[in-house]
Order: sequence, then C-alpha cells, then structure tokens
Amino acid sequence: MQDHIVKIFDTTLRDGEQSPGAALTSSEKLEIAKMLARLGVDVIEAGFPAASPDDLEGVRRIALEVGNSNPDGRTPPVICGLARANKADIDAAWKAVQHAAHPRIHTFLATSPIHMEFKLKMDPEDVVEQVREMVSYAKTYCDDVEFSPEDAGRSDPQFLHLVLGEAIKAGATTINIPDTVGYTTPEEFGALISGIIANTPGIENVQVSVHCHDDLGLATANTLAGIQAGARQAEVTINGIGERAGNTSLEEIVMALRTRRQFYDLETNIDTTKITRASRMVSNYTGIQVQPNKAIVGANAFAHEAGIHQDGMLKHQDTYEIMQPDMIGLSHSKLVLGKHSGRHAFKSHLIEMGYELDQEELDKAFKRFKELADRKKSITEVDLEALISDQISQPIEIYSLDGLQVSSGTMGLPTATVRMIGPDDKMHVQAAIGTGPVDATFSAIDAVINAPNTLLEYSVNAITEGIDAIGEVSVRLEADNGSIPKRKSPQHSNFFQTRTFGGHGVDTDIIVASAKAYLSALNKLLIASGKYDHLKKKPKKSIPASTVHEPVNP
Amino acid sequence: MQDHIVKIFDTTLRDGEQSPGAALTSSEKLEIAKMLARLGVDVIEAGFPAASPDDLEGVRRIALEVGNSNPDGRTPPVICGLARANKADIDAAWKAVQHAAHPRIHTFLATSPIHMEFKLKMDPEDVVEQVREMVSYAKTYCDDVEFSPEDAGRSDPQFLHLVLGEAIKAGATTINIPDTVGYTTPEEFGALISGIIANTPGIENVQVSVHCHDDLGLATANTLAGIQAGARQAEVTINGIGERAGNTSLEEIVMALRTRRQFYDLETNIDTTKITRASRMVSNYTGIQVQPNKAIVGANAFAHEAGIHQDGMLKHQDTYEIMQPDMIGLSHSKLVLGKHSGRHAFKSHLIEMGYELDQEELDKAFKRFKELADRKKSITEVDLEALISDQISQPIEIYSLDGLQVSSGTMGLPTATVRMIGPDDKMHVQAAIGTGPVDATFSAIDAVINAPNTLLEYSVNAITEGIDAIGEVSVRLEADNGSIPKRKSPQHSNFFQTRTFGGHGVDTDIIVASAKAYLSALNKLLIASGKYDHLKKKPKKSIPASTVHEPVNP
Repeated sequence: MQDHIVKIFDTTLRDGEQSPGAALTSSEKLEIAKMLARLGVDVIEAGFPAASPDDLEGVRRIALEVGNSNPDGRTPPVICGLARANKADIDAAWKAVQHAAHPRIHTFLATSPIHMEFKLKMDPEDVVEQVREMVSYAKTYCDDVEFSPEDAGRSDPQFLHLVLGEAIKAGATTINIPDTVGYTTPEEFGALISGIIANTPGIENVQVSVHCHDDLGLATANTLAGIQAGARQAEVTINGIGERAGNTSLEEIVMALRTRRQFYDLETNIDTTKITRASRMVSNYTGIQVQPNKAIVGANAFAHEAGIHQDGMLKHQDTYEIMQPDMIGLSHSKLVLGKHSGRHAFKSHLIEMGYELDQEELDKAFKRFKELADRKKSITEVDLEALISDQISQPIEIYSLDGLQVSSGTMGLPTATVRMIGPDDKMHVQAAIGTGPVDATFSAIDAVINAPNTLLEYSVNAITEGIDAIGEVSVRLEADNGSIPKRKSPQHSNFFQTRTFGGHGVDTDIIVASAKAYLSALNKLLIASGKYDHLKKKPKKSIPASTVHEPVNP
Repeated sequence: MQDHIVKIFDTTLRDGEQSPGAALTSSEKLEIAKMLARLGVDVIEAGFPAASPDDLEGVRRIALEVGNSNPDGRTPPVICGLARANKADIDAAWKAVQHAAHPRIHTFLATSPIHMEFKLKMDPEDVVEQVREMVSYAKTYCDDVEFSPEDAGRSDPQFLHLVLGEAIKAGATTINIPDTVGYTTPEEFGALISGIIANTPGIENVQVSVHCHDDLGLATANTLAGIQAGARQAEVTINGIGERAGNTSLEEIVMALRTRRQFYDLETNIDTTKITRASRMVSNYTGIQVQPNKAIVGANAFAHEAGIHQDGMLKHQDTYEIMQPDMIGLSHSKLVLGKHSGRHAFKSHLIEMGYELDQEELDKAFKRFKELADRKKSITEVDLEALISDQISQPIEIYSLDGLQVSSGTMGLPTATVRMIGPDDKMHVQAAIGTGPVDATFSAIDAVINAPNTLLEYSVNAITEGIDAIGEVSVRLEADNGSIPKRKSPQHSNFFQTRTFGGHGVDTDIIVASAKAYLSALNKLLIASGKYDHLKKKPKKSIPASTVHEPVNP
C-alpha cells in the first residue's frame, strides 16, 4: 500500500444519484463513468444494483465498458456495487460488477443505537453476526469487499471496533467509516478514525476509508481530518451532490491536498485538469446546478479578476490567487467552430473535449451542429457541450416533437400549438393557453399525451455568454398515479423511493428547449410505465421539422 | 464580555456585495439590513463608504434607519463601515456610520510579505507606523474601532503580534483575523488564533474576531477552529456569498454551534427561525442562486424525506435528521391568498412575512397582487416574496415597458415587438428578430434604448411548484463604453471595479419577466451614466397597459 496516496472513491453515480431529482439514464451514467475513469478516480461506485433491474443493468454496462480498459493506458478503475447486508442484494451486486477487471462489493449495516433500535430492530449481537455472515458471503464471490458501519458517527466506538474487527476477520479489505447524517465535527471525526485504527484487530492489513456528509458544512474538513488520522480512501462526489446537503466534494478534497501538499504531504491519482469538465457534465446530466460561490468549480471561484481593472499597474499573480485556473482545466469558453466548419474539424474537437461518439451518433450531432450554426455565428465549447450532453441524455422517443408555435407577451393570452408524432406514427396537434408561454406549451403537450404528473422543478441553466447562446432547460416530474414501478432505497429498508423523471432540452429558443425537456421527461415516464416495451428496441425515426410544413388536424 | 456568546458580524452588504454580479441598489441594501436586524445579527458591515458617493449614502441610510431601533425591542445592531488605513477612507466611513446608535469604523492594512512587497510596496516598519496612526485617527471619531491585518493567514505570526499589539495600544477594540485568500487548514488557523491570543499585548481587553474564505471548502471549519481557539466574533455572509468561492456562511456557523451545542458550549444571538427568509431575500436581490445541496439553506437540505414513502411503517424522526426544518423557519410554501383576498388580508400577510411597506408601496403591491390573482388561482408565499422583492429592487424608470408581443417556436423566426415610454414621455415601438424569443426581445429593447452593453449573465430562478407559478429572471450586464463612473475596490488600491448592473423581473410569462429584468438593468446603467439626474426626483408615471391599445409608430 502506498501510504502517501489517498485513493479517490467516487460515489456520484450511487450516493450522488440519490439526490432528489438527480435520477440519471443509463447512457448518462455510462458517460459519467467514462469521464470519471479519465479523471483518474481509483474506485467508481456505479450504483445500487438491487434497487431495480434498470439499476443493475446500468452498473453491469459500466463494469463491462469502463471497468476493463482505460483510455489513458492506466489500470482501469475498480467498479463497485452497493449491497445491503443480505444475500439478495449481494447477489445482485455481484451479477452487476463481475464483468469488471477489478470488481468490488460494498456492503453495509447500521451500528448506531438509534438505527439498530428503530430502523433495523436488531440487537447489537445480531448485527455483529449478520456482518460476519454477509461479509463472508460477499467474499465467496469477490476478493475485494468493502464494509461500512452505517451512521458510524453516532455509534459507540467500542462496539465499532468489535464489528469492524469481525468484518476484517470475515474478509473485508476496505473498512469505510461514514458520518451518515453529517453530524460530527472535525475533531470528533478525526478521533473516531484514530480510535478505530488504534483499536480494531487486523486494521493494519486493510484500507481505511472515510465518507462524510455536509449537513453542517463540515464534510471537507471532516474528510481531511479522517485522512490526517490515517484513512487512505476518501468517498466523494463531483460537485458534492448527494442526499440532503450532499457528500464531500471530490474537487475540494483533491485541490486541498494538492494546494496544501506541504501541509498534508499526500497525493491523489487525479488529473486535476479534467475537474472542470467533469463538474460541467455532472451538472448538465443531473440538472443540479453549482452555485457561483462553490469552492473550486463555482463560476466565480476564479472570477474576482474579472471585476478588477489593472489600470496599468502590474500585479503579482499570487497576491489573491492560491490556485491557477488552468490547474482545474478552466479556460474561457472561446469560439471553436463556425458555420463553415467541416465534419473532420467537428469530430476532432469532440475528441479533444473527451467525447467519443460512434458513427451514427456523430452524424446526428453534426446535423444538429449545422442547424445551430445557421442560427448562431460562433459556436463555443459550452454550446458543443450542451448539444452533446443533450443528445446523450435523450430517451427513446415514444412521442416526438414535430413543431411548436407560441405567442405571448403583455397584450394577450399566452398561446401554444404543438404538433407531435405519437407511438401510432400519427401526427397529433393541440393548442392551449396558459399563464405564460411555458405553461401554455406544457398544457398543449398534456392535451396530446395523457400522462398525469406533478411538475416538481423547472430550471433554466444560467447563460453567461450572450443571450443568443443555446438555452438549456431541465424539468423534473413525478407520475400522479401508482402505475410506475418503484425503486428500492438502500438506506431505508421497507421504504421505496418515488421515481422522479428528469428531462433536459436545449435550443436557442428557451420555449422550444422547455418543450423538449418536458417531452423528454414524459417519454421516460411512459417508458417506465412498461406499456411501451415493444418500442424499446426500435429507435423512432423523427421526421425533420423542415420537411413537414402542412398543417395537420388533430 | 459574555464569553459563551459568539457575536455574529454580517458582511453580506460589504464582502458579499463584492461578488461579481451581486451589486445591490440602496433600497435592496436597506431591506437586507432590516432583515439582518430582525435575524439578530450583532454587527452589520453595511458597506465600503469610500467606494463611491452612492456607497456612502447607502451606508448612511442603514445607519439612520436600521442603526437606531430594532423592531423586536432588542438593542439595535452595531453599524460598521469599512475603510482602508488612510484618512480619506476613515473620514468617509465616519460620515456614513455616525448616525447609528452604535457606530463602528473597521480599518485594515495588509501584513503578509507578499502583500506588503507587491501591493503596498511598504516596509514592515512603515506598515506598523501606518496602523498606529490610522487606528488613532479612527479613534478620534469613534470609540468602537476594528482593525484587520489583511492576509493574516499568510503573515508572519510574530509580526502579527507586534502589529496587533500596536493597534490595540492605539485604541482598537476588536481585532479581526482574516484568511483573505482561503488558504489555511483548520489546524493552522486555530493555531494562528491561539498564538495571537497568547502573545499579543493587551489582547485580553479586546474582542477577537475571525474572517474566513471558502477557496478550499474550509471556511466553516476554519471559523469554528478560530472560535474554539478563543475568538468570540465571526465574520460571515448570508448564503456564504463573497468574492471567488465566498465567505463563511452565517447559517452554517450558527447552526453548527446550535446543533452541536454540547460540543462547542457556545451560543449566538441569532433567531434561527428567520434564516430561511434571510437566505431567500439575499438570493433574490443579488441574483446569486443557492445550490440545492447547500448546507442548511439548499432546497434539498431537508428534502430527503420527500423521496421516501413510509409505506405504513413509523419511522423514528432522528434516524436521518439532525435538525428540524422549523428550526430555520422552513415551511412548505402554501396557498396563502386568492383572487378574492382583500387589502387587509394582503397587508397582514406581508407584515407576518416581515415586509413593512408604506401606503404608496402597499397600494402598488396590492395592484400587482390583484393582476397576478387574475392569472393564477392560488398565490403562495413564494409568489408574494417574488412580487415584493421585485418591486423593492426596481430602479427609477427612465424607460418603462408598456407592451410586449412575442412569437416563436420551431417553425419560424422568433420575433418580438416592444412598446416603451421614454424619458421624453413619448411612445417608442420597435420590432426585432433573434435566435430565440429572449434574444429577439432584448434586440428590440436595444433598438429603442441606445446603451451599448455586454450581457454577462441571464438566469431564471428555478420553479418548484407548478409551471403556472411566477417566473423570476435576473440579468447582469456591463456598459461597453467608459462613461460609467467607476467604484473603488477596498482590497485593490489603484484598481477599480467595473460597474456591473443587475436587473430583476417577475411575471408568469418568462419572456415578459426577461424584458422587465433587462430593462431594469438598463435603467440602472442609464442612471449611473449621470445623464438622467434631472429625472431622479420625479417618479415616472407608467401608463397601465390596458388603457393603451392603439398601435404607435416609432
């Protein structure tokens, strides 16, 4: 074990994806996993395979496609699946991760008095016994087994030493200590880790890991305190997403260790110059925006220069800067392509940006790029990112948008007319009014697609480079009836997560982008209802808007 | 001095307002200051009076109107003005704060080798001498003087002890230690404060304060480490806004001390139930959104419950909750008023929400409420907040929007027609096309108002309760020519901040909201140009849209 390396265990796709509204499609998960591999993450926790068959399939694809090679020629990352401490979950996890070159099963059981009494309804002795049995069971599949005592931050330290000792005896190779509810202070959490290292039999032969939550704003400090106490794996997410106030941010831990290397004397395997791109991808796909004043990856994190004119006086660079923007791969978005750029230039730019599309996807993307270039003179890297991430995040189209016409303003009633092609391959046209153009558009779509739902969130990504830029809209909704199969939540046995459906749309016209986003969420809802499984294999041909100009009656 | 109380020094209006794009109008500053007083903040740093005459006037109004009484009958907060260590700045600060019952002058000078050499170009001896002179000078005006050694985190501790000892001898009553560039770790920052308390002559007679930045995600932990080392004042901002990655968050410090009272054994004077409201107000006025996974005040911070269905099983409340939502005043936005609600119900609701409007403002707000109620069946607290904060943030209207008509969609060229009343009291009508409806609208407005500018940001507040809700749009722009008077930056002598202008608009139609936001930013730009000073005293009468229906040629 290299003692000066802190391994980065990324759980964006598992704990991060549990954030309300972050639900990702399996293509989005795969793209994020590829990006995490390029970033140099040591372990990717790819999901909770027992949650649903879709979740299992998502983890399996990542194990196969990301867990066996790394584009940079490095060792491929470990692919990890989460499992509660029961056989069914462990079976599902193994089924999903076994195809990776380096698979890991991560199992957990709560050890705090409050969780054992009210959630598990188990005696401490039974908890010890179940940990012993289930770690051994996981070990029959896989050499690499991680065990976490859930809510360790509120557990009795002596009981923890006992449970963890048994887990190690049963074969656990990584022991992960979560502060599940984000309750501890750095002193407490550091002391907890020191105590575990000093008092747990066999701990010297395993990896010690820390997993913190940010409920009191202390996740980064707690994780660093755990590392100072001897932990050499940190469980983190991109942008710090996760349930409630989220998990520890990958970028904060990596850059704190990097910027303050003289203090911590530790390193990670992360290629920091890919941090900005990873942050943008996760924010685009999850629809969870990063606030401007977020450390490292916020839009203003390096921006104070912008407001200061130097008025001729040379300024020493380090006066107000402790990091240089290019360390995290931040470059000002610049004109990269124009109307006359050819397919070759387009393709090489995408490769440079880290997107490897197959021929069909590339053709589709190039066509959309040309349409955009007709409307907007200069296409920046941000525009390209929006375009590609939108394409990747689209589900199979049960209904597709064929035309939209909207009028609004202060003088009349906002009115929208939509024309859509349905699963019957027929055109459907409906008009509706609303309190605004987006409301009218959604009502018109609802008049065609009868899928009762509650809109939970509608958001427009901030535009920071001219109002003619591409607009990105995210929506999140929940089906109103009980027809959607539920998904299990790892922490809440006997509870289920309501399925929410996110949609994403881009266009220079934000009303059109809104329609696309809403339709994309509705298509996901329709697919999840199971009523359109026969369409899943057959990608719908969409009729290009430019070829259909005759009005069609509903 | 009460040793178990940590005083909360809020610098949202000074360091927070230095964030790119956070520029606030003086009415917005006053409203925020009133909210801070209700929140129970001990000290309000109201601004940097030497920045510009407008800044001085803003601080003066707060000193007068907020610094002399507190609606809850408590002692009014200390009103503080920032000043570099020179006579002109200290004069300006005193001019602004002298009207408060408890005024404070806060002066600072850099003490780190890098700042002394490259920014100040001063020898350490001269720095000591200037601190001594300028603290004494401030003391001739005001008993309450705070001194900060800028970039203390990177200063030589022994030199700090010397400088601070001299500042205390010269009369400083508060010594504030800033980690200006957010570089320190909690251990380092705690040790710095302990060292200062152990080695600075006279320190036992003054208040020790800490001021941290979040560049590495450690601001909260560093501030708590400083408090544990003996500091009893924390400098913070609402939502952690501020330059780069921002300042320490007020809500995180207050709630960490509150939730972990048994660990820290300290209290603040903050009424935590007003935190949510203060957070929303600051986010609305500055246009700086709070990410969903922000600790305490993020939309998801208490939201994990939402995704979990209890399926009949009773769950122990504390299993996953360390704070209750009502501790921070978070209540789900509910129907509060409808179409038939009268003026009395409207007024009492506003008072309950903390808004005290005068008769004229109330009439205006009630009219807008009635217009909204015609379009939207149920008006929630969030709608009312949007409406009122929009009204408060509007500048004097040089140009006012009289009508807007927009058509867009996938089938044609997005086109907008605007009708505006100008400073000449004449109607101006222009039509324009664009890449989308917002671009077209802004182009049409530009065709009427000739004020070359660069749009820096366009953002739409996320809607979380049905798409018929009110939409809030923020824009930020910068004048293209050099005609706008600049504003001094406290940290960068010889540099100036470019003035950026923020605009805010609300409407159920997001295109109309966008037009209002853009126009509001442009009106601020026109006012700042100084060409319309003669209109400042005369509030423009706007002709209600419903009475003007004849088309007017430009």
